[in-house]
Amino acid sequence: MRIGIDLGGTNIAAALLDEHMKILCRMNLPTRSERPYQEVIRDMGSLVHGLMRMGNVTPDMIRCVGIGSPGTPEKESGNILFSNNLNWHNVPLLKELAQYVPIPMKVDNDANCAALGEYLAGAAKGCTSAVMVTLGTGVGGGIILNGVIYDGVNHAGAEIGHTVLCSGGELCTCGRRGCYEAYASATALIRMGRQAAQQHPESLLATEKESLNGLRIFEAAEQGDTVAQQVVEEYLFYVAEGITNVINVFQPDVIVIGGGICGQGEKILTPIRKQVEASVFCKQVSVPKIVTATLGNDAGIIGAAFL
Amino acid sequence: MRIGIDLGGTNIAAALLDEHMKILCRMNLPTRSERPYQEVIRDMGSLVHGLMRMGNVTPDMIRCVGIGSPGTPEKESGNILFSNNLNWHNVPLLKELAQYVPIPMKVDNDANCAALGEYLAGAAKGCTSAVMVTLGTGVGGGIILNGVIYDGVNHAGAEIGHTVLCSGGELCTCGRRGCYEAYASATALIRMGRQAAQQHPESLLATEKESLNGLRIFEAAEQGDTVAQQVVEEYLFYVAEGITNVINVFQPDVIVIGGGICGQGEKILTPIRKQVEASVFCKQVSVPKIVTATLGNDAGIIGAAFL
Repeated sequence: MRIGIDLGGTNIAAALLDEHMKILCRMNLPTRSERPYQEVIRDMGSLVHGLMRMGNVTPDMIRCVGIGSPGTPEKESGNILFSNNLNWHNVPLLKELAQYVPIPMKVDNDANCAALGEYLAGAAKGCTSAVMVTLGTGVGGGIILNGVIYDGVNHAGAEIGHTVLCSGGELCTCGRRGCYEAYASATALIRMGRQAAQQHPESLLATEKESLNGLRIFEAAEQGDTVAQQVVEEYLFYVAEGITNVINVFQPDVIVIGGGICGQGEKILTPIRKQVEASVFCKQVSVPKIVTATLGNDAGIIGAAFL
Repeated sequence: MRIGIDLGGTNIAAALLDEHMKILCRMNLPTRSERPYQEVIRDMGSLVHGLMRMGNVTPDMIRCVGIGSPGTPEKESGNILFSNNLNWHNVPLLKELAQYVPIPMKVDNDANCAALGEYLAGAAKGCTSAVMVTLGTGVGGGIILNGVIYDGVNHAGAEIGHTVLCSGGELCTCGRRGCYEAYASATALIRMGRQAAQQHPESLLATEKESLNGLRIFEAAEQGDTVAQQVVEEYLFYVAEGITNVINVFQPDVIVIGGGICGQGEKILTPIRKQVEASVFCKQVSVPKIVTATLGNDAGIIGAAFL
């Protein structure tokens, strides 16, 4: 058996899994990341013990505890070099957690874990290589080549969200202008929706004000609001533009789109596929499958457990 | 011993090498790609036999004949699926060449071979992973991960030149707008130089007219021509912008810049490094070395020979 932990900015989600990647039981706790890291990590230890009690298993029956962490983990030492979300700098995660957990542990970036989860048990199961693009608050990237997470010599790579798509464009959280994240994240969609609402007070989008979110923009488009339709069209153009970039470089078997927006399914896949097929570099060869993630938040837990 | 062939749009360059990657002797012939492919390939056969005579070796002493070809080779079959430069479509390169050459043969993309050459014997020697960006007529990409060429499941990847950097911008040869190639190739530099010359008839650039080339633009900048200096600055901004993208995704040990422009050495490396270091995503971790290629045209030959 294994335990996977998805350490998020808001919640710590953990589960006990069997070797067939089936989730046997789950527990979670609020992260409350404003606390000292020692307290957050102690709670992670409590989750491991809670799951073992719930599953009626002993530490020697657990092959691995894997953790998907935001930011940049140093796999070898188990330290989190830094994480904006948690405001962690050089936090000795695995060393600290070892005080509570007498089980072999591994850690990787959360986007990498989600990609590995989808690769092992979800939308990219059975493929040779896959790239996952998670469209959330930011844009996360996870690259799996021949079954192995690829993230560069310093494990800081795979930052697909931080490749410039519109040089000189919108300011990104990373400090550069025009990053893919600044055009393809849910945050970017909401920004586009707000701008359109200001220019078009007649639009359904204008009724939402501060409560406007990605889902509402898609719903308004569905209801025939032409302003919302244009926003969705523009947003999906950028999403597809970045996916085409990824394909031209990686040519994986499959591109997995994750994040809240992937709930739109074929409504986003059809226009994205159309644009990608028309614009990829090597149309004469195969074009990768483009699919939405199937495991939701479980992807990160499963991937972490099977690091 | 091995033979490496760099099949170019203008010339076919071939060399006999020992197992230490030392070039023992060379030969070349014009490609004259307007001819039927059979004639081009027959000339490649003549080069192999010429090199064997020159080196006084027999076919059984040659371990491999490797070919770097433009376009998209299918490694397994040895066919060139397509090449814009040669105007080849589904050309059975290795099968045709086997009529003349009774030696095991391999083929890969020319940019991949150049990257492998620099990785094995040039600017990236001793590294774990390297990405080569060749700034020539186009922008070629070559990705070496753990000593192996990475180009995707269909061998059509690594097209770093065909990732959009300025969405909606300049038209690229691939049909998309705003590709890295349309901003960082020597062709793009010349375009920027011509545009500046039109707007500034007082500039040295305006005296060149049709003969304006990349080298002349760098020379004019060196001579204090402020218009040329601005063109070089703008051009290097885009070069560095794309290199930062590559680093954020790949985080290799080293980035190798190839192509004619790499002759500028520190004059281009200093501003590129400065911009990259200020803008990469994970400044807290290591930043890859950025160097210019050292093998020139030999990189492709050496890489091909050691495929």
